Amino acid sequence: MATTLYLDDLAVGQKYATGTATLTAADIKAFAIQFDPQPFHLDEAAARNSLFGRLAASGWHTGSLSMRLLVDGEMRIAGGLIGLGGELTWPRAVYAGDLLHVETEVLDIRVSASKPDRGIVTVSNRTLNQNGEVVQTFVVKMLVPRRAVRQGERG
Amino acid sequence: MATTLYLDDLAVGQKYATGTATLTAADIKAFAIQFDPQPFHLDEAAARNSLFGRLAASGWHTGSLSMRLLVDGEMRIAGGLIGLGGELTWPRAVYAGDLLHVETEVLDIRVSASKPDRGIVTVSNRTLNQNGEVVQTFVVKMLVPRRAVRQGERG
Repeated sequence: MATTLYLDDLAVGQKYATGTATLTAADIKAFAIQFDPQPFHLDEAAARNSLFGRLAASGWHTGSLSMRLLVDGEMRIAGGLIGLGGELTWPRAVYAGDLLHVETEVLDIRVSASKPDRGIVTVSNRTLNQNGEVVQTFVVKMLVPRRAVRQGERG
Repeated sequence: MATTLYLDDLAVGQKYATGTATLTAADIKAFAIQFDPQPFHLDEAAARNSLFGRLAASGWHTGSLSMRLLVDGEMRIAGGLIGLGGELTWPRAVYAGDLLHVETEVLDIRVSASKPDRGIVTVSNRTLNQNGEVVQTFVVKMLVPRRAVRQGERG
């Protein structure tokens, strides 16, 4: 169903969906041991006495899992999903057993003045849990190639 | 050497360092298989034909590894490093063999009006490679408890 998209195929307001993914307590701890070994990501009892109240995923785990959902999702960009950066927020914690998905919306499209074979597309990626609560937002600028110039590259 | 810091201990302009960490090609691929399975993160030959030119780490891998450096670093916040979000950029790719560290600077400190036992501290976390080139910036708002109220909580 997903086709490869060039900048020319995108329009402000377009929406793209992803599948879903869940995190188990074991997933949360395995990520945390490697990348964010803080007690509230590693141990249920410690988490109960923390701000989170129960075992919570590292925000970087949420971000990484959201990336995985996007790579497997509907919005397949030619050349890949290459983000330059943007505003990232974690408005709500992710807990063991949560079922996440990402909703993408195209916010802005700009062709590069200096490199007309590409452009910058700004998208909003919102990660939601099974209750429809937003657990992460990432308004990210992505590098996206243009179709016309790509075709001219052959030969 | 690292002591536990409360909001009251922080001041704008303070700087904190971390140790270093390196990423091997195997590390880059292992992270990518799980969280960002795009060809330029998985395969040297595919990476050569991509924008990156050689095997490059997922930005989420850079972010996650930077978090690990911070957790093990000098800036030990009471209650842990709890980020609410901020502006994240990846100005330069991270390649296999790169040696990374993070440099933190306190940018802003605000006591919460509604919850005077805590505040929001904005820090700049810059991740640099072995050549002193910035590979990630994250200007992040962190939740930080105040010392005075914490002491009053006992009993």
